Amino acid sequence: MSPERFAKIKAVLAMRQPDLTVCMEEVHKAHNLSAVVRTADAIGIHEVHAIFPQKGVRMRPHTAGGSLNWVKVHRYRHIEEAVTALRTQGMQIVATNLSAKAKDFRDIDYTQPTALLVGQELQGISPEALALADHHVVIPMLGMVQSLNVSVASALILYEAQRQRQNAGMYGHSRLPETEWQRLLFERGYP
Amino acid sequence: MSPERFAKIKAVLAMRQPDLTVCMEEVHKAHNLSAVVRTADAIGIHEVHAIFPQKGVRMRPHTAGGSLNWVKVHRYRHIEEAVTALRTQGMQIVATNLSAKAKDFRDIDYTQPTALLVGQELQGISPEALALADHHVVIPMLGMVQSLNVSVASALILYEAQRQRQNAGMYGHSRLPETEWQRLLFERGYP
Ligand SMILES: C[S@@+](CC[C@H](N)C(=O)[O-])C[C@H]1O[C@@H](n2cnc3c(N)ncnc32)[C@H](O)[C@@H]1O
Ligand SMILES: C[S@@+](CC[C@H](N)C(=O)[O-])C[C@H]1O[C@@H](n2cnc3c(N)ncnc32)[C@H](O)[C@@H]1O
Repeated sequence: MSPERFAKIKAVLAMRQPDLTVCMEEVHKAHNLSAVVRTADAIGIHEVHAIFPQKGVRMRPHTAGGSLNWVKVHRYRHIEEAVTALRTQGMQIVATNLSAKAKDFRDIDYTQPTALLVGQELQGISPEALALADHHVVIPMLGMVQSLNVSVASALILYEAQRQRQNAGMYGHSRLPETEWQRLLFERGYP
Repeated sequence: MSPERFAKIKAVLAMRQPDLTVCMEEVHKAHNLSAVVRTADAIGIHEVHAIFPQKGVRMRPHTAGGSLNWVKVHRYRHIEEAVTALRTQGMQIVATNLSAKAKDFRDIDYTQPTALLVGQELQGISPEALALADHHVVIPMLGMVQSLNVSVASALILYEAQRQRQNAGMYGHSRLPETEWQRLLFERGYP
């Protein structure tokens, strides 16, 4: 490994946001899943969550732009299992909801420990997931279509979180626990 | 057509932004193209531009979420042709550029008449397109991957434009020329 690459990895680890994540409820299409993981990596998320009752997740390494080496995907069979795990980590649960009653996605404080719940391509998020959430958010839709692509919607909310965290100085210093930092640097830095 | 649907169409036409558009330089994958068109519709863009030197564009109606009925795609063989057409409409040309010298995408004034240029999945935007642009913009990348998916990157910039235009009151009243408004209402309202 070149010294440049080692320095790049260290810089990236210093910007990781252990208290921000995204949880995908049965997002089926590999290109959507992979695009979400790629965006997650880009704003400093190193662990994401996915619910798949039946079978495993297929990823599309190319669409993911290499991010699958850098972002861990935790899998669950049921939404309740996932939300319990996220709450144990002290996260507020923010679910997308295409409803007039949901808040504008820019009106949430994402500097708090946050897990974003996004839904399936066709049916969207389940009533069960909505019931488990602390906040419901919607991205304004000013045209004829009802909804955005799930990877697009996830990115808009995650980059709003990035903007707020940047302004709050949360990318300025390492936020990973020291042991995890060491482990990641060792695993990834010396493959 | 139900009165509700007719009212919806009128409300959407009243929010259209004739002086905002996106121009895709050889975006090849149908699911990416369709996702860009869908996002364009969602923020009030009713005409987009695409450069395809060789063959036509294939769209994926499903991924586009029905937006292809509402957004017109203008096709060109060459980037220069497209930029000339956009400049004739008085637009500033904002090109994405994955470079440290590019401005943060949030630092551009998108309330000005604006065409956003985005690039190909593999090679990105051409040097020629970059040379024709007034501004180069980049979305911050804080992880290991080099770039975002093109439909994700387009959406982030278009929704920043939406945010600025919303704050500037540009969605509050019809901005389409009266004749175009009538034409669209007639064509779409009575299919
Ligand atoms: C294609 S949409 C699902 C559409 C589905 N018919 C529904 O009513 O929810 C897939 C996912 O993208 C996200 N999404 C799409 N558009 C959104 C918007 N405008 N606001 C918030 N989330 C959105 C949500 O997570 C949604 O579950
Ligand atoms: C997958 S990227 C192309 C990557 C290509 N290797 C390059 O160096 O440009 C496809 C398109 O998405 C847009 N894009 C992706 N990430 C971006 C970012 N961080 N900032 C601005 N535009 C981006 C650009 O329009 C780019 O041409």
